[in-house]
Amino acid sequence: MNMNTVQQYIEQHKERFLSELLELLKIPSISADSAHKDDVKRAAHFVAEKLSSAGAEQVQVHETKGHPIVYGERILDEALPTILVYGHYDVQPAAPLELWETPAFEPHIRATEIHPQGAIFARGAADDKGQFYMHLKAFEAMMATGELPCNVKFMIEGEEEVGSDNLSDFCKANQTLLKTDVILISDTSIIANDTPSITVGLRGMSYVEVEVTGPNKDLHSGVYGGAVANPINALCEMIASLKDKNGHITIPHFYDKVAVVSKQERAEMAKAPFDLENYKLDLGIDDVNGELGYTTSERTSIRPTLDVNGIWGGYTGEGSKTVLPSKAYAKISMRLVPHQDSQSITQLFEQHFKSIAPKGIQVQVRPHHGGEPVVTPTDTVEYLAAHKAMEKTFGKAPIPVRGGGSIPIVALFEQVLGAKSVLMGFGLNSDVIHSPNENYGLFNFYKGIETIPYFYHYYRALKSDK
Amino acid sequence: MNMNTVQQYIEQHKERFLSELLELLKIPSISADSAHKDDVKRAAHFVAEKLSSAGAEQVQVHETKGHPIVYGERILDEALPTILVYGHYDVQPAAPLELWETPAFEPHIRATEIHPQGAIFARGAADDKGQFYMHLKAFEAMMATGELPCNVKFMIEGEEEVGSDNLSDFCKANQTLLKTDVILISDTSIIANDTPSITVGLRGMSYVEVEVTGPNKDLHSGVYGGAVANPINALCEMIASLKDKNGHITIPHFYDKVAVVSKQERAEMAKAPFDLENYKLDLGIDDVNGELGYTTSERTSIRPTLDVNGIWGGYTGEGSKTVLPSKAYAKISMRLVPHQDSQSITQLFEQHFKSIAPKGIQVQVRPHHGGEPVVTPTDTVEYLAAHKAMEKTFGKAPIPVRGGGSIPIVALFEQVLGAKSVLMGFGLNSDVIHSPNENYGLFNFYKGIETIPYFYHYYRALKSDK
Repeated sequence: MNMNTVQQYIEQHKERFLSELLELLKIPSISADSAHKDDVKRAAHFVAEKLSSAGAEQVQVHETKGHPIVYGERILDEALPTILVYGHYDVQPAAPLELWETPAFEPHIRATEIHPQGAIFARGAADDKGQFYMHLKAFEAMMATGELPCNVKFMIEGEEEVGSDNLSDFCKANQTLLKTDVILISDTSIIANDTPSITVGLRGMSYVEVEVTGPNKDLHSGVYGGAVANPINALCEMIASLKDKNGHITIPHFYDKVAVVSKQERAEMAKAPFDLENYKLDLGIDDVNGELGYTTSERTSIRPTLDVNGIWGGYTGEGSKTVLPSKAYAKISMRLVPHQDSQSITQLFEQHFKSIAPKGIQVQVRPHHGGEPVVTPTDTVEYLAAHKAMEKTFGKAPIPVRGGGSIPIVALFEQVLGAKSVLMGFGLNSDVIHSPNENYGLFNFYKGIETIPYFYHYYRALKSDK
Repeated sequence: MNMNTVQQYIEQHKERFLSELLELLKIPSISADSAHKDDVKRAAHFVAEKLSSAGAEQVQVHETKGHPIVYGERILDEALPTILVYGHYDVQPAAPLELWETPAFEPHIRATEIHPQGAIFARGAADDKGQFYMHLKAFEAMMATGELPCNVKFMIEGEEEVGSDNLSDFCKANQTLLKTDVILISDTSIIANDTPSITVGLRGMSYVEVEVTGPNKDLHSGVYGGAVANPINALCEMIASLKDKNGHITIPHFYDKVAVVSKQERAEMAKAPFDLENYKLDLGIDDVNGELGYTTSERTSIRPTLDVNGIWGGYTGEGSKTVLPSKAYAKISMRLVPHQDSQSITQLFEQHFKSIAPKGIQVQVRPHHGGEPVVTPTDTVEYLAAHKAMEKTFGKAPIPVRGGGSIPIVALFEQVLGAKSVLMGFGLNSDVIHSPNENYGLFNFYKGIETIPYFYHYYRALKSDK
């Protein structure tokens, strides 16, 4: 494989690669919001078209019960190793809109302290349009120069942000089509632009919506206040009771299956660079706050969590209204670690939450989506290929880290397709994905496109050695 | 005073009285919402016009820094006793709109179980348009028949639902204009249509809005969850901690000034008819829930309370979003009893609420409006006049009761104008004021118009006797 010609091609076409990404970022493909169903479809067709023009074959937009899955492949030789690239073209909702410095779906490029060369500000810039699109462009470069060293398959879905509900069925129904040696995913972060890392663990997730009902109608808080359970007060009490004062989650049996991480591994993790003062400064907080007995890095990786992601009830408009409302709601997510499983945790939550409802309060728990935690080994050919590729382009060996986020399909792939995933992402934690002003560094976008062909190269070489 | 001619006049014009009220109810005079500023003004001018046409003089729409105050009077003779009628033409917001069976500002009349003769469904039907309008029509009837026995002054304001911010200044600046022997207010309830009652106590109120800030921007709950204080979780914990498990409020010194109600008075109160099973059935709750050691009637009258009236934060749209938000908010009101005062309680709340913020959380407390609790004696001329008037028209002696709601200006009137108020309301608790489907019985509307002239009659007679 002549890497020079590949890298030259990338260098020559980088302006176009970027403008294509900006086009994709203009499409508000918000999978959670049914009002954007057509936009999600439009994004799928955009991806399919770019796959085709890059040289993929069998390109199809597979319809599902929800949003479509885009597939495309290039099979050189059945004897060669196959890489399945997974990504998602759907994005999180952009709310609260007023906090965006430039509109979420009108990408702007501007320099920041972290990205002196510029960063792309747009919803989905880092999660995951900017990251999966690197793979399309790296593929285009290898195809155009005749240097593609492995078979490649692309599966780019449109429901990652809402739980990948239809991906499991699609994988099960298409096991032959999707047969692969490894799955390559860029939907995670590196520690810093001068400190590459590879994600070797992901937290799973249980996500529920709770509805708490007191009286059957909104009441006047003067007439009934003090005598009738207020669903907002009740919801607050119930949520507050889910953690003790050490930050430990109180749901019975919640920790039963949590794998104890060895002292050695914790000591190893502690070596990753982390600056607590900068962390606090960046977030504008006077102190961190989490489970007693664990460091910040541990709290966001090897320990499960419970966060309220949204709450609402009663009067939330201007001024005051003395209502004792009928209902209050919350969206609550729990991040899970090996070997918790999302279904059991959701059940434990539901049971417990209903059991703690005070007198005069009724509770409904609606599970949203779940996903399983994963930890990937670092002694495999695929990990090594990613390690060598990053070492080559960053000039520095990447550090294996456990991430706090969830990509539920990683566990699914292992189960259904029998293949391991490599989480070679190029984002930064400061990309503020899921938040206003999400952004992705130009450095990171181009570094990804540069690195990916090396992964193909080393992966084929290491597989041949075996 | 020839009461027969007055009552005949009322009987002859009752259809028009109702249609005028329906016109007033069509005006969305929501004082809390600045978008409705012009509607509030329109309602003020409607009231002024009706006062004039009923025979009032010196009618004026007084502008204030907020919404206007409508004044009008009819002075027969300085030697006669003067009655000041207070009411408010502003209404609560109508949200949640989707729960109204007919639109909030399109009044509909329909029969209900409680009101077989029909009830008017509209925002403000009972609170307070339907109630203060009875006074205009009773006045019209007394004027038209030449039977007005006392001097009368009307002061109908437009900021009651937002704390009557400008009424105090108006009263202080117009003490001569407003000079009166008694203040008559219909903005409360009777126990039932066959069980009249007069309100002799009102709770005061402290109302605050709290803003709880964690990180300076919305974060991804996977990347930061577990390590950074989540403002929603924190807000829930802080709110939950405001009451202990006996329903006692935990703010230090909160109860210091609460008047202890004697065993005798509690025994007297317990005689008022109250059907707990019907109460629960009406509200669709399996049990009541409040402060340990007190009955439902006591919890809503002689004891202070703390209710969250609204809460919001994070993602509240369709589907799921794994955000760890920067901010969360709540509107919290406390009902106060003698001799608590709203300013001290608001201060105690603010101090305490800030002191319980967990690590990594900042708190702002914004006071909305407050009002003082009152208890009125039952051995006065004005109370007796109301008692006799109701006894006459209901055929049954009214029961003195303490109400749970707040009409902050009652304490203000006593302080600034040196006059006692009589709370002769005609609503029912089932009118669901402040809630969707607020309604006011036709029986109650007409019974009020019928009763008010008797109050004038007895008040003049009793004053002469003295």
